[in-house]
Amino acid sequence: MIRTLLRTTKTSYIHLNQRTAVRFASSKPGKVLTTETMHPLVKSVEYAVRGALPIRAEALSKQLKTDPSKLNFDRVVFCNIEPTLLNLSFSLEKKVASLCENPELLKAENKALVSKLYPADAIARAQVLLKNIGSIGAYSHSKGITHIRENVAKFIERRDGYSANPDDIFLTQGASEGVQRVIQLLTQNQQSGVMIPIPQYPLYSATLSLVDAAPVPYYLNESQDWGLSREDLQKSVDEARKKGVDVRALVIINPGNPTGQCLSEDNIKEIIKFCHEERIVLLADEVYQTNIYQPERRPFHSFKKVLKSMGPEYQEQELFSFHSTSKGMIGECGRRGGYFECVNIDPAIMEQLYKISSISLCPNVHGQIMVDLMTNPPVEGDVSYPQYKAEIDAIFQSLGRRATKLAKCFNGLEGVTCNSAEGAMYLFPQITLPKKAIEAAEQKGMTPDSFYAMGMLEATGVCVIPGSGFGQAPGTFHFRSTFLPEENLFDKFCGSLEDFHKSFMNNYRD
Amino acid sequence: MIRTLLRTTKTSYIHLNQRTAVRFASSKPGKVLTTETMHPLVKSVEYAVRGALPIRAEALSKQLKTDPSKLNFDRVVFCNIEPTLLNLSFSLEKKVASLCENPELLKAENKALVSKLYPADAIARAQVLLKNIGSIGAYSHSKGITHIRENVAKFIERRDGYSANPDDIFLTQGASEGVQRVIQLLTQNQQSGVMIPIPQYPLYSATLSLVDAAPVPYYLNESQDWGLSREDLQKSVDEARKKGVDVRALVIINPGNPTGQCLSEDNIKEIIKFCHEERIVLLADEVYQTNIYQPERRPFHSFKKVLKSMGPEYQEQELFSFHSTSKGMIGECGRRGGYFECVNIDPAIMEQLYKISSISLCPNVHGQIMVDLMTNPPVEGDVSYPQYKAEIDAIFQSLGRRATKLAKCFNGLEGVTCNSAEGAMYLFPQITLPKKAIEAAEQKGMTPDSFYAMGMLEATGVCVIPGSGFGQAPGTFHFRSTFLPEENLFDKFCGSLEDFHKSFMNNYRD
Repeated sequence: MIRTLLRTTKTSYIHLNQRTAVRFASSKPGKVLTTETMHPLVKSVEYAVRGALPIRAEALSKQLKTDPSKLNFDRVVFCNIEPTLLNLSFSLEKKVASLCENPELLKAENKALVSKLYPADAIARAQVLLKNIGSIGAYSHSKGITHIRENVAKFIERRDGYSANPDDIFLTQGASEGVQRVIQLLTQNQQSGVMIPIPQYPLYSATLSLVDAAPVPYYLNESQDWGLSREDLQKSVDEARKKGVDVRALVIINPGNPTGQCLSEDNIKEIIKFCHEERIVLLADEVYQTNIYQPERRPFHSFKKVLKSMGPEYQEQELFSFHSTSKGMIGECGRRGGYFECVNIDPAIMEQLYKISSISLCPNVHGQIMVDLMTNPPVEGDVSYPQYKAEIDAIFQSLGRRATKLAKCFNGLEGVTCNSAEGAMYLFPQITLPKKAIEAAEQKGMTPDSFYAMGMLEATGVCVIPGSGFGQAPGTFHFRSTFLPEENLFDKFCGSLEDFHKSFMNNYRD
Repeated sequence: MIRTLLRTTKTSYIHLNQRTAVRFASSKPGKVLTTETMHPLVKSVEYAVRGALPIRAEALSKQLKTDPSKLNFDRVVFCNIEPTLLNLSFSLEKKVASLCENPELLKAENKALVSKLYPADAIARAQVLLKNIGSIGAYSHSKGITHIRENVAKFIERRDGYSANPDDIFLTQGASEGVQRVIQLLTQNQQSGVMIPIPQYPLYSATLSLVDAAPVPYYLNESQDWGLSREDLQKSVDEARKKGVDVRALVIINPGNPTGQCLSEDNIKEIIKFCHEERIVLLADEVYQTNIYQPERRPFHSFKKVLKSMGPEYQEQELFSFHSTSKGMIGECGRRGGYFECVNIDPAIMEQLYKISSISLCPNVHGQIMVDLMTNPPVEGDVSYPQYKAEIDAIFQSLGRRATKLAKCFNGLEGVTCNSAEGAMYLFPQITLPKKAIEAAEQKGMTPDSFYAMGMLEATGVCVIPGSGFGQAPGTFHFRSTFLPEENLFDKFCGSLEDFHKSFMNNYRD
């Protein structure tokens, strides 16, 4: 039964059921809050990572439980986001969190029992944390627990070799919250511009939509491993300024999402020089800083470290750096932990950031604890170190293998090319779609990449995100896929993608 | 050494140190991001609950650790927010959360040990939760975990006697996140008006500032236990509409914050009728629904329940109801758990809410678990029930005693009157300040109530919030104080407030 949902001017719904139109009788004047009366900026937001594809994937997932007979697959593989799959049983962090939850376990009378269930370093860490936190259940300081911000500062110092001040660090609920807060503060009106990469993670375009500021796109160069040059940046800022846009900030995602590139130190220096000369605030999204798959060729360099290593003329460059507990090898995304560091930010702006953080009271304390554990992993000599090291290494190597395998699979498909992943968790292959497929998409009112991705989902149960959700060079089509499905399922997973692609191309080949 | 911080036009800071003005030499052109270039709406936000008073209280708290000799008190009592004090060692919820953190504890090989540390119902609940959640560390559905939303719906059904749909429930990080999201959606431009009580919780005024919509104040009647009448509401909406404001929504905080009143069923009916007739969406902030201290005289009635009990003409009234894990007897505020229920909301708006929730990916899973436990407390027959019942009853009775004692203390002060608390966690006494004190405040550039509250903080270490942060009838002065300090400290606490007040009045008596 084909049903179409139409909208009347009264915003009640009528179902057009084949030839019988049934209109629901209604004497009421309709809703006060409708998509006509709602905030236009909220309405204009697009957010592809959880858009039409994932919604269909959810429906298919439900159908598998209730009526699987019509589907050609036995599970939906959510390659649109980082799913539970990465979430391995890390011993230390989960154990510390578990002890912090139930401080009774730390009482003397339970010591004998608890020491059989928990390693000594987990117990010691939980004791230190609870001494400094008081209780998980209480509001913390709006910037986050001081003790944890001190530990984050030490982590940054160890990572970069330059000092960090705990007062410059705000703990947040994932990196997204920090990004939203900083972008909101950074923009002033519709003419305020923020440079974002194309392709980009849609958090940036969505946040700019919400605050009604101007996205200023700069293109990453697909033929050069998604690199970017000073010339590209300059062109982009010059064009925007010609249009009257007040370009204030530049977002860099390094390693890249969805593109997986990892910037060289020289490239980072170029970007910093550009920002300094053009008086542009740097927003460095560095949430994938430990997801580095070619560490010798392309190690991770933080923007803060590179900035500090440069000449005195660069030492006032304003920089926000974002990090998260959701990525890396721990992938503790459900906890919503993160932080951002403010470098060379005006003290009066720091006060405004504090004020605006206060409205949400505080980041959740569990997420804060996870930030502490992420930035202070076990070290050699700790009881938990051998297990930690083994788990980290295993995940790291497995992710590297999966990235390589999936890129190989994509590159083997007719008309598909895919850069290898230097970092992050995604591949962003380009697909050359036949004209017939593009026309078929148009007939359905879909973008060609959405049409392809929806076809893949319906045929294989694999949910990827069309490139149009991230932005792509005009006339090109891509999709983003995580390489996170369980490794033992990879052959089957790649096999079904190949089958789908062949059949799609056979259907639509020009 | 008196130091004054001045601001130059270049937004660098100079210190005016007594008679020597030292200007830091600088050849740099100054910061890009300053309070002049930042978003004006963010700048305009005021947020008193964590404003000047709490910032000074934090500084005093630090001073107590480093240089306590000059202070007349040995601890800072944070009566500005709900502090750790309420956070008692609830057995069941903490234990379930601890087990969910560390699923290894649920393995067969640990059963013997774990059953000595955890009650059987905690183990059973953790098993059910983990079965439905998968892992705490993974992103959940952006609306929250389905199983938990189903449990919340059952809780609402038990509470109200009317059905609730899990699809109409969004889990959130505390109630604040939900309120911000709904207000953002509900407003369209500067002419969109939202009615808020005066006094109000500053989340509402701050959020309206941020989205640049018009607050439409209506006054609560202090002489009638902070009640409100249809006439007051009508007057307020009529005046706003005369000025061209498109009044769309009404915020009711019940029980009241900062005012502690609990609305009668008849009063709620009046409000619903008013909203229905005036085509106004209802936002019911019901986070204090279990903080009820006069349950026979003033029981809690949810807006949803009262709405459902009314005639058919009211059955399309749009309502959002907010709840939180931060209040009640559990006070698990650091976990940032909450939910809102959408009643009679346009399906297209529900989709927009889902989209906007997706940008933050999901509410933290720990907070979601706490929502589950809050809405499904142990029941008679559960192993944990006797302990749960004893703890709840003890906190409840103690809060009632503290509320009465503090109101009595305030009412005993010269020129102070204070309504008793029917609900919530606060008292909002009115202080008649002498003219001399008002003049002294003016000379310091402070509001008279801030001047009084700052005096109290410096003298006693007790941090309350001036009434001006919540709004008050012109010419009246108040402050908000929680009644949450530990009961055994109450005599000392009240004693030092009395001493301060006497000395303040002696200093400034006209």
